Amino acid sequence: MGCVSQPTSPAAGTRTRLSPDQRRTQLLDLGVSLLATRSLDEMTIDLLAEEARISRGLLYHYFGNKHAFREAVVRRAVDDLVAQTAPPPGGDPLDRLLASVTAYVDYVVDNYEGYASIVKAAQGGNEALRRLYDEARTALTDRIFTEDAQGEIFEDTPGARLMVRGWAALSEELVLAWAADPTGVTRDELLGAVAGSLPGLVELVH
Amino acid sequence: MGCVSQPTSPAAGTRTRLSPDQRRTQLLDLGVSLLATRSLDEMTIDLLAEEARISRGLLYHYFGNKHAFREAVVRRAVDDLVAQTAPPPGGDPLDRLLASVTAYVDYVVDNYEGYASIVKAAQGGNEALRRLYDEARTALTDRIFTEDAQGEIFEDTPGARLMVRGWAALSEELVLAWAADPTGVTRDELLGAVAGSLPGLVELVH
Repeated sequence: MGCVSQPTSPAAGTRTRLSPDQRRTQLLDLGVSLLATRSLDEMTIDLLAEEARISRGLLYHYFGNKHAFREAVVRRAVDDLVAQTAPPPGGDPLDRLLASVTAYVDYVVDNYEGYASIVKAAQGGNEALRRLYDEARTALTDRIFTEDAQGEIFEDTPGARLMVRGWAALSEELVLAWAADPTGVTRDELLGAVAGSLPGLVELVH
Repeated sequence: MGCVSQPTSPAAGTRTRLSPDQRRTQLLDLGVSLLATRSLDEMTIDLLAEEARISRGLLYHYFGNKHAFREAVVRRAVDDLVAQTAPPPGGDPLDRLLASVTAYVDYVVDNYEGYASIVKAAQGGNEALRRLYDEARTALTDRIFTEDAQGEIFEDTPGARLMVRGWAALSEELVLAWAADPTGVTRDELLGAVAGSLPGLVELVH
């Protein structure tokens, strides 16, 4: 979230030089940074208006209504997650997986409140958020097969797809549980468990 | 669910011989059996009244209100799940784990609609259902340590507890995904993957 430029003190002069698209992007950045330490329910138009020091009316102008605003923030947050966890371009497949997993763990730890509440809202039947969450989950898991097109880690079979899906659920549970209470488990142990579990899991269906 | 005695045609004479507790139990059995092929939202007082051929008023008498009714049915369903997946009393620890997992897979396949909707409602922030779901999840995972008190499968450490928790999320995802679409993965492969994954996962944190 390092891309928010002094969100709490935008000089009026700076603000007027931004295009509507730039301004909307800046507001989304601010929304995502607020979401890091707040649940989705706490992430209201009122809060953003106060933090951005603009009127609620202007926010409605940019986002339409509170649901559209919340969805736009979540879309931006999951896009950030997918981008930040992209594996490095070259190297050993397993090393690249570990780098990606490390970025995922760091993302969840840094954005715990918002991430946990997005997962909860998506699983609980908010259809718009569920779609966004499923898209992100699919992007994160499909990437394992597209990044590994030569099948260096494992073949692309229905069984492997199922296990990668299960591994994503395992990883999410491990990281959320560890971020909430890391007692007795080091960060390296967690990273080793998340990244190290995938090959063994996929082998079980071969 | 084999304990429902002809729920759709209770003769009036039979019904009056039951005590209120027995009658309540019979109604819960019927509720749980209806839940097997329906979501929690479809599982209404109206439906149960129709299926049990009694008045809605009598159902309110037994259960208080529709939330209490739904909770009572879910409590009964998760108690059934925990009971039906109890490992056999003796034998090799891994064989007992496989027996327990097999019962879990069968339970989810036989009760797919209701089980999937309970998971969704619990994850989505219905606090009463979440508590019941967490209790069941805890009963299912703690059992692994109490059943394995001699540490034959693995030691009881924070890392092992965390991995068992992750394994429960993995197992739930695998079984629900497979029950919804089993293409390309046999039941034996699924069972092998769910039961076979636990020891390897726990080893990763040692």
